[in-house]
Amino acid sequence: MTEIRTAAVIGLGLIGGSLARDLAARGVRVLGWDRDARTLRAAVDAGIVDELRAGELPDLAVVAVPVLAVPDVLRRFLPALAAARLVTDAGSTKRTGIAAAEALGIGGRFVGSHPLAGDHRSGWDASRSGLFAGAHVYLSPTSTSSDEARGIVRWLWEAVGARTEWMDAGAHDRLLAWTSHLPQAVSSALAIALARAEVPREALGPGGRDVTRLAGSSPEMWAHVAADNADHLAAALRMAESELRELRLRVEEGDPGRLREWFALARGGGAA
Amino acid sequence: MTEIRTAAVIGLGLIGGSLARDLAARGVRVLGWDRDARTLRAAVDAGIVDELRAGELPDLAVVAVPVLAVPDVLRRFLPALAAARLVTDAGSTKRTGIAAAEALGIGGRFVGSHPLAGDHRSGWDASRSGLFAGAHVYLSPTSTSSDEARGIVRWLWEAVGARTEWMDAGAHDRLLAWTSHLPQAVSSALAIALARAEVPREALGPGGRDVTRLAGSSPEMWAHVAADNADHLAAALRMAESELRELRLRVEEGDPGRLREWFALARGGGAA
Repeated sequence: MTEIRTAAVIGLGLIGGSLARDLAARGVRVLGWDRDARTLRAAVDAGIVDELRAGELPDLAVVAVPVLAVPDVLRRFLPALAAARLVTDAGSTKRTGIAAAEALGIGGRFVGSHPLAGDHRSGWDASRSGLFAGAHVYLSPTSTSSDEARGIVRWLWEAVGARTEWMDAGAHDRLLAWTSHLPQAVSSALAIALARAEVPREALGPGGRDVTRLAGSSPEMWAHVAADNADHLAAALRMAESELRELRLRVEEGDPGRLREWFALARGGGAA
Repeated sequence: MTEIRTAAVIGLGLIGGSLARDLAARGVRVLGWDRDARTLRAAVDAGIVDELRAGELPDLAVVAVPVLAVPDVLRRFLPALAAARLVTDAGSTKRTGIAAAEALGIGGRFVGSHPLAGDHRSGWDASRSGLFAGAHVYLSPTSTSSDEARGIVRWLWEAVGARTEWMDAGAHDRLLAWTSHLPQAVSSALAIALARAEVPREALGPGGRDVTRLAGSSPEMWAHVAADNADHLAAALRMAESELRELRLRVEEGDPGRLREWFALARGGGAA
């Protein structure tokens, strides 16, 4: 690995901010940017980043912004990426960033990243060192990602303690619709239903709090993910709707045996 | 409080078993029974209970069985309850147990209990001391519960570290449909949807694991709860279905602004 001395982190929220902290702690000079001037100021004042200014040419760049903004941000910062041997993003969907990188002619230096890290909190104030320790990171290459870019992106995430897995962007977006986006949707739908019924959150037991915790996540980020992964997410939502309806029909029917079968399916997580 | 020397615990699963352990540790003689002979044997062998045999007349009795079985169990054990100054249950719904106690003529000595404790595990093997420390327990009186029975039931739960709240059975069953039964249903529907899509549980991130954790709960117990609270639960399920459908329509529409509104409602947990 040729040495990485400077890294740009564009977007200093939970993911970008935490990555900046860990890279800075490893002695990498981090050049930061955020559309919110107060966030950028906070990151500079904390001694974590220097402001990414025109003329700086970082060795790698991470775009950690809501996924629908990735194409615009790549376009806008293209001059600053001239010397970068790796450009990556950190979005929860992978097809859009890859298509944008290829359209901008930087497909060879681009690899998509998706760290499964963080929680329902968001923003620079929620960022912290060690966020990626033990986390799983999906890596999705473009059709032309160079060996060097592939090597650097692995180094990047392993340097902050994560483990990486390569997955084609299409397969990633389909899988994550189920493993991440659908759980988020279900948790959020429950939270809204409780609010409409005027049920105070404090009345929830420990189980109910587990199920609604995700609903506190960033609306901005999830709006982007849901719009960007609409095809796969709509299919997953239909399946969840169908299972809730099936349960309701069995509840209205009132036969404990049929209800037991349904709850047993849920416990087993298998066999129709 | 007149001294409680012997307590019957009928049903030695997670709730009954844990209560038996805590009462035994306080020096109360616990008379146990379970329909599963191996469970009863395990509890006797562990030195926690003596078998509840004909002729024993405990000072109080706790019926900790799936809620639809409460009426039959009360009827079957009525002779053993002749001297009990308190009879209570531990079910997740309260109307059925109270109606049964009143029909059997023991309404004056009966108070319904619902401890919000435990997790997705179930059975004697999952029972443990300290389960109720800090837990919330709803107490629902019959129309004739005596002051003595009310006093003893509070003593019982506070003795094992719980805090108690009085709530009319009808209000309890409506509230819990939302705060407990609906979260269980939503978690279970998600688990079944993931299984149908052949998504391995290991692929879930931390958030997805939170949302599906409850789905591992006892199918027997939840079948009883869902059947017993069908009226309130069906209404809650309709609301959750409606919110999931609303999200799907917005996903299909693809407008990030409209999606952001929806996720913001979920985060705020308020305001339509």
